[in-house]
Amino acid sequence: MPDLTCPVLTPADDRILLGHGGGGRLMQQLLERVFLPAFASPELDARHDGALLHVGTERLAFTTDGYVVRPLIFPGGSIGDLAVNGTVNDLAMCGAKPLWLSAGFILEEGLDIQTLDQIVASMRDAARAAGVTLVTGDTKVVDRGKGDGVFITTAGIGRVEAPATVGPDAVRPGDSIIVSGDIGRHGVAILSVREGLQFDAPIVSDCGPLWEPVAALLAAGIEVHCLRDLTRGGLASALCEIAAKRQVGIRIDDALVPVDEAVRGACEMLGLDPLYVACEGRFVAFVPAAQEQAALTVLSNVPISSGAVPVGTVLPENPGIVLSRSRIGGHRVVDLFSGEQLPRIC
Amino acid sequence: MPDLTCPVLTPADDRILLGHGGGGRLMQQLLERVFLPAFASPELDARHDGALLHVGTERLAFTTDGYVVRPLIFPGGSIGDLAVNGTVNDLAMCGAKPLWLSAGFILEEGLDIQTLDQIVASMRDAARAAGVTLVTGDTKVVDRGKGDGVFITTAGIGRVEAPATVGPDAVRPGDSIIVSGDIGRHGVAILSVREGLQFDAPIVSDCGPLWEPVAALLAAGIEVHCLRDLTRGGLASALCEIAAKRQVGIRIDDALVPVDEAVRGACEMLGLDPLYVACEGRFVAFVPAAQEQAALTVLSNVPISSGAVPVGTVLPENPGIVLSRSRIGGHRVVDLFSGEQLPRIC
Repeated sequence: MPDLTCPVLTPADDRILLGHGGGGRLMQQLLERVFLPAFASPELDARHDGALLHVGTERLAFTTDGYVVRPLIFPGGSIGDLAVNGTVNDLAMCGAKPLWLSAGFILEEGLDIQTLDQIVASMRDAARAAGVTLVTGDTKVVDRGKGDGVFITTAGIGRVEAPATVGPDAVRPGDSIIVSGDIGRHGVAILSVREGLQFDAPIVSDCGPLWEPVAALLAAGIEVHCLRDLTRGGLASALCEIAAKRQVGIRIDDALVPVDEAVRGACEMLGLDPLYVACEGRFVAFVPAAQEQAALTVLSNVPISSGAVPVGTVLPENPGIVLSRSRIGGHRVVDLFSGEQLPRIC
Repeated sequence: MPDLTCPVLTPADDRILLGHGGGGRLMQQLLERVFLPAFASPELDARHDGALLHVGTERLAFTTDGYVVRPLIFPGGSIGDLAVNGTVNDLAMCGAKPLWLSAGFILEEGLDIQTLDQIVASMRDAARAAGVTLVTGDTKVVDRGKGDGVFITTAGIGRVEAPATVGPDAVRPGDSIIVSGDIGRHGVAILSVREGLQFDAPIVSDCGPLWEPVAALLAAGIEVHCLRDLTRGGLASALCEIAAKRQVGIRIDDALVPVDEAVRGACEMLGLDPLYVACEGRFVAFVPAAQEQAALTVLSNVPISSGAVPVGTVLPENPGIVLSRSRIGGHRVVDLFSGEQLPRIC
């Protein structure tokens, strides 16, 4: 089901577009055309949120993410929280307890130190809340007009506590798909600041750490097949990537996907589909259908996942395709966006 | 011996200067004023090139660095080589065999893909040469005019093979100080491109991986006390930091410090002191005086360190002070620069 509106990277002439950073089809192309051929390895080929490493008898997860969000401070967080929680959550999605972080700062000449202080304080608080230690770092400064205030790249190491590999390859037909709470709040919070929108109650980012609910699932003996946090590209892109990697079909029910009323209203006004809007404290879990109720009970007892609900199921048919049943009964194909709805959301 | 030309960070009003990224006194201030208070931990307090982590019975080193060098491609390398070797070398300086890397790319909209291809190819080649695997990565894109082509932040994990901790705290009075080869080539190679200078023979960066000579020292049973690669701020800053951290005196002999004739000539023309110019394939080693000759024999048999020479010694007196004996016999104090001689050198 090709997306005819998507430009194709050709060997020469082509330039990087904002959409290449968007978690959609353009980004997949950039990965497949530039990065994966150069760095082919079993770890990268798994196309998961982190790499699995064997150290002695221990299994570690290792992951990295860059953060370029604009504005630097937003309702419910800052680039600092995001840089801690984003990497903590990538580790959690590998079934790994987050332990250690590194942070590389790229500062623009002219940044005021008070803003930096505020960002660093939010990183410290987020690291404490997530139970990780920032153990090593680096700072570079670029000339005025060659950066944008602050960019942060964090890398993280965690200890894998899931007994079996958690990832797209472990997804099976019949699995129940659970979303850990209402979606789209982070993206709408960012956009409301950028666009100067006013709501009756401000929409606040859901940015937060996700290891606690994952640890609870594992402690309860839930056989967690796959986890994915719903960042760039939102729930839709996460499901599309997993369906494509595992070559299974996925069917979800639009009416079951939780969206806060204010977020839904803002999305309608802005012409956004909430399924594609980024969260920074939500994830999707694939578990055996027989354990769906047990998983929901566990998640509902952890504050950050107390709104968990089942939204769909994995099918043997239609490999690589995600279908959504609309509120009025028809089905639509949920596909990767070409670029992205919202640039620089994280 | 305060540097009176160095501005002092005050709580308010102050802004980031290019010099805050320079590896000199301003950068130390930024660390001490903003980052260390927020992230206090034994690992960060060690003020070494990487953090030491205990995983089961294994000791790992973990480090990160951002790369913002301009131009992206330079004589002898590119930002890609640099991003691999710089992090590989930080691990080697912890006495750790580099194993795994992560890479976070921040691309500017409009970058041509051929340049990205060239950079990625140089990373692939550098990773192969250094024996490390890039296992996880991330790409973000920022709007045109909000970046500068490509920034790369790598993090690395290595297995510590040194029997005892390698770092400033292990330095002892009487130690011999060995430099692994001629200094200043990387900085001058970069500057010659920026300034459009022509030399009879082009000066090429010394960018390269340093684990092989470190492994050879360890295999030969050399009791390596401290290692430091000579990047931002060059040999002078490395020695100043170690003298300050360990509270020992250091004396070096200017005439013993190897500088290529073309590099020396370029430095004179440009008004640079080679002691402060960055290398990307050189390090300083602190070893017991009794093992100096053995260490030199080992290093001279490894191509990248074949030019190793002793340049000085550690003294119990003058704690925190680095003295250099000049070619005409007097002594000068070698101090941290306030900012940096050459911005965006790595």
